[in-house]
Amino acid sequence: MTTENPTLEWKWFIEWASYYEGHMHGIKRIFYVGKTKYQHVEIIETYVYGKCLVLDGKIQSSQADEWIYHESLVHPVMITHPKPKKVAVLGGGEGATLREVLRYPSVERVVMVDIDEEVIKLCKKYLPEWHQGSFDDPRVELVIEDARRYLQKANESFDVIIIDLTDPVPGSPSVLLYTKEFYQIVRERLTNDGLMVTQATNASIPKFKNYLIIYNTLKHVFPIVRPYYVYVPSFISAWGFVIASKKYDPIAITENQIREKLSKLRGNLKFYDEQVHRKLFILPKYIKEAMKRIKDIATDEKPVYLPV
Amino acid sequence: MTTENPTLEWKWFIEWASYYEGHMHGIKRIFYVGKTKYQHVEIIETYVYGKCLVLDGKIQSSQADEWIYHESLVHPVMITHPKPKKVAVLGGGEGATLREVLRYPSVERVVMVDIDEEVIKLCKKYLPEWHQGSFDDPRVELVIEDARRYLQKANESFDVIIIDLTDPVPGSPSVLLYTKEFYQIVRERLTNDGLMVTQATNASIPKFKNYLIIYNTLKHVFPIVRPYYVYVPSFISAWGFVIASKKYDPIAITENQIREKLSKLRGNLKFYDEQVHRKLFILPKYIKEAMKRIKDIATDEKPVYLPV
Amino acid sequence: MTTENPTLEWKWFIEWASYYEGHMHGIKRIFYVGKTKYQHVEIIETYVYGKCLVLDGKIQSSQADEWIYHESLVHPVMITHPKPKKVAVLGGGEGATLREVLRYPSVERVVMVDIDEEVIKLCKKYLPEWHQGSFDDPRVELVIEDARRYLQKANESFDVIIIDLTDPVPGSPSVLLYTKEFYQIVRERLTNDGLMVTQATNASIPKFKNYLIIYNTLKHVFPIVRPYYVYVPSFISAWGFVIASKKYDPIAITENQIREKLSKLRGNLKFYDEQVHRKLFILPKYIKEAMKRIKDIATDEKPVYLPV
Amino acid sequence: MTTENPTLEWKWFIEWASYYEGHMHGIKRIFYVGKTKYQHVEIIETYVYGKCLVLDGKIQSSQADEWIYHESLVHPVMITHPKPKKVAVLGGGEGATLREVLRYPSVERVVMVDIDEEVIKLCKKYLPEWHQGSFDDPRVELVIEDARRYLQKANESFDVIIIDLTDPVPGSPSVLLYTKEFYQIVRERLTNDGLMVTQATNASIPKFKNYLIIYNTLKHVFPIVRPYYVYVPSFISAWGFVIASKKYDPIAITENQIREKLSKLRGNLKFYDEQVHRKLFILPKYIKEAMKRIKDIATDEKPVYLPV
Repeated sequence: MTTENPTLEWKWFIEWASYYEGHMHGIKRIFYVGKTKYQHVEIIETYVYGKCLVLDGKIQSSQADEWIYHESLVHPVMITHPKPKKVAVLGGGEGATLREVLRYPSVERVVMVDIDEEVIKLCKKYLPEWHQGSFDDPRVELVIEDARRYLQKANESFDVIIIDLTDPVPGSPSVLLYTKEFYQIVRERLTNDGLMVTQATNASIPKFKNYLIIYNTLKHVFPIVRPYYVYVPSFISAWGFVIASKKYDPIAITENQIREKLSKLRGNLKFYDEQVHRKLFILPKYIKEAMKRIKDIATDEKPVYLPV
Repeated sequence: MTTENPTLEWKWFIEWASYYEGHMHGIKRIFYVGKTKYQHVEIIETYVYGKCLVLDGKIQSSQADEWIYHESLVHPVMITHPKPKKVAVLGGGEGATLREVLRYPSVERVVMVDIDEEVIKLCKKYLPEWHQGSFDDPRVELVIEDARRYLQKANESFDVIIIDLTDPVPGSPSVLLYTKEFYQIVRERLTNDGLMVTQATNASIPKFKNYLIIYNTLKHVFPIVRPYYVYVPSFISAWGFVIASKKYDPIAITENQIREKLSKLRGNLKFYDEQVHRKLFILPKYIKEAMKRIKDIATDEKPVYLPV
Repeated sequence: MTTENPTLEWKWFIEWASYYEGHMHGIKRIFYVGKTKYQHVEIIETYVYGKCLVLDGKIQSSQADEWIYHESLVHPVMITHPKPKKVAVLGGGEGATLREVLRYPSVERVVMVDIDEEVIKLCKKYLPEWHQGSFDDPRVELVIEDARRYLQKANESFDVIIIDLTDPVPGSPSVLLYTKEFYQIVRERLTNDGLMVTQATNASIPKFKNYLIIYNTLKHVFPIVRPYYVYVPSFISAWGFVIASKKYDPIAITENQIREKLSKLRGNLKFYDEQVHRKLFILPKYIKEAMKRIKDIATDEKPVYLPV
Repeated sequence: MTTENPTLEWKWFIEWASYYEGHMHGIKRIFYVGKTKYQHVEIIETYVYGKCLVLDGKIQSSQADEWIYHESLVHPVMITHPKPKKVAVLGGGEGATLREVLRYPSVERVVMVDIDEEVIKLCKKYLPEWHQGSFDDPRVELVIEDARRYLQKANESFDVIIIDLTDPVPGSPSVLLYTKEFYQIVRERLTNDGLMVTQATNASIPKFKNYLIIYNTLKHVFPIVRPYYVYVPSFISAWGFVIASKKYDPIAITENQIREKLSKLRGNLKFYDEQVHRKLFILPKYIKEAMKRIKDIATDEKPVYLPV
């Protein structure tokens, strides 16, 4: 069909949420399609959400709202630590997690560990709106390695560890990065007042079970554990996160303290501020009640898998 | 295909968000398909969201999460009024808005005004999980009429008016129920300390423009106007609402006051509580900034239309 | 979406040809959706093909072209027999196979055997364009029974047996009606100069393997076996048939003989004539060559299944 | 989703037959996506039909069955001419029409005229299974030009002209290559015993109207005109063709003559033989009857457009 008739799009990306639910995105442009050693990679432009990074058929982030996801992942944990100097980012190939971390003037060193060098190269090339040059910041060290193996043999400690990995779908290398054993390794690599945050999969009804399992798992490993979530339109979902901390509690920090700290950051945020911080940590009744009911945890032997 | 192979669903409901985006729902069961004088009606059961009421191709509410929508619509405004006795509900054919209003022991009279009697009959028959018998409550009067015409000629006043109408898509009778002129009529029918709330269409990026226009429009008519939104999974969207008030401010009420009032309600809520009340009214930075930029209002002559 | 925008149809029937191929039909109207003891039944009206009978997710016939299918099924075998008096129709719930058989003045008795009484009732009610009153013809006896069991215990013989069953998808009662053992039973119930014809599944590239297996199977049971096929648009496929005969050969009959016989039939055909008869039996090179290669047959122990 | 679950394909090509009908093809691999001066080009591999050339959203030919289309286009007209020496091919960028023409030992010169040089380059690179080196045959001259302009100024005559152009969709340069005025130009460029053939769009119910209009148009220009069609699975349609001739009639040639001539061709055909030749020209009753009814022709002023 000709361009006079925009409704008859002939190329569609369908993201399947499960056997019974799919989301059709009209494709405006295809930048890259290929397969790395670890995953299928597509970089496409959809009409509604702009450029998207798609790994193994799932949108990882879109130009229209990647900052909702990345600001929500990074700032609650970074702002809670009084002065984060050393930060590790696990995953986060787009470089946008890095971008948010590097806004903090206190940060002296960021180690980014990602298993898939090709994805990083593709993001560097095709997604400059995401990384904005972050890979070239002298504070950054990029390590190509399995994140778990890296942490196991690392001999330094971090103030903050940010876990920005793909979902634990069956067969993915990410499956063993959401287990109790893995979180024990993370705890070892945190300083005495360190914190970690992880993306924690879909938090929407009726799909939030894994989110609670990740929360439960972290409660077996850390003294302070705070779940939160944010709605990300291009994910067609509310997205879950969990902060786990040795000492500082993200819900104890005041609005004034957050505002004060945010004023020192480099650049401007688009989603997060001191009010949004509070908003994120408020969970609706049905999640609070499900928390009383669901007690499973994820272990190396019995991990969580998506979709539920 | 046989039921052994659940992945090859042959009946799909595709809700088109625009020319370029669609959401595919596998259909488990079809309860009703027909056309009333005003709209196409389908009552289907999807695999993921259970029973759904679909009007003119758009999901109005689903069994899996209608309570997120209806509790968010009703309680913030009802809880803000000290003692709502007389309430009008415009639209809300499922009867679930009624259900939430009737939880308040102070309520003495509810007038529900809906243009489409057939839809109400169908909801009574097929959606008992929604109305739970609310239509039979002796406090309820059901009026079949265009809501605007009803208000124009009504000679009573209401403490709270709840506007739960279909979206203003081109050609819909709802188009003139989102304009400045209409809100002036609403204001006339409120008591001196009365409040109204309206559903205010999609609040997601990049589709939230109409939400802000409705907000702007109400600011031309009422002294206190508070926008809020909630993520409703089956809408595949964050959904906007706006409260407009003559006297009481929904963000001035304290958590203790809300908790106290909620303890008096009949039945149990599943989504809303005093913390969620706070959560709802916190808007992210990008919406607050768009509010400074977007100044359009909707009038009878130049109304808002969906999709943007 | 409103009717002003016809492109955004919200109800689609997707017929999945396999995991990797689907055909989307915009639905104009739904007449019936339900489940009988044996199968899912939908009677819908699509925009392009008009009314369709859909069993277990597959279009059985459509108003736009059912006569291509039914004329191709019935006339080649009926016209080849010099004077068919007694005919059995297995399956064919729509009544259109019956309709074509009843055009022959020589026909004195037709036994139609179908397992699913409910489907027949629905077709009688919703598909009058198909049956055109055929069920009321005094020559017709309708038997509700499994076709194989019926033939096993029947004590009469037929000049022609027409097999118009659903495809042998896994779990379907039809699976054992495409096997060598079944065709031996059919042979027993034919007169000494009798013929049978069966629909023989998809004959399109690259899906025609089962068609050849059915052909091979019949060659183990009958002396004269002739495969043919016709393109049926609403099936999105070329559709295969096989005639198996004890004495008369469908490709030996002349055009003049066919024309002469057709002139005696009741009513007018829309697809088939003496030239089309010839056309149907000409197979392309690639099928003739595949026939040399593919030698499998279907037995009760190892039946054919769709999709290939 | 991972490759363990092949059913949840995330990339789909949807070919829209009209507003109300679409065909979903799971995409296995994308070779090329781009835009030339004239059209969108995609070269993809689908799971069911292998590699496909897609222009402006429509499959032009697929690896699984391009030979059905190309053999049906080329051989009926070439075999009818006693000794074709000079041939023109208009369009046919894949090079497969060329491949079939070059099988004839009598052919001394083939001029291929295509407007879109980029498409030809892409086909050369990505579709070697189609052209099989035909572009390098010394008998071939490739001209990049609008076919109509080329013929208008050409000063040589051809024994056979083969028209293998894209469909006349609104806005396409092909629209004026299906009109009476164009066919008059073609007639001028044919030798006194020359023939032409054109692809003639969809011949399926209920979409065959343009096919008949093209047939009617040619009858205004040539003394002998023969329509035929073939089912091409990846087109999800029966495809129409029309031969127009000054002297030789394709339905007058005998099976023996065809067999004799085919035995001299270079290489092996997969679809066409002397029986298939006969099959192709037999039209079903409903098309013969529609021919009596539909009398429109296409002119420069009032051309045909797809979809009907």
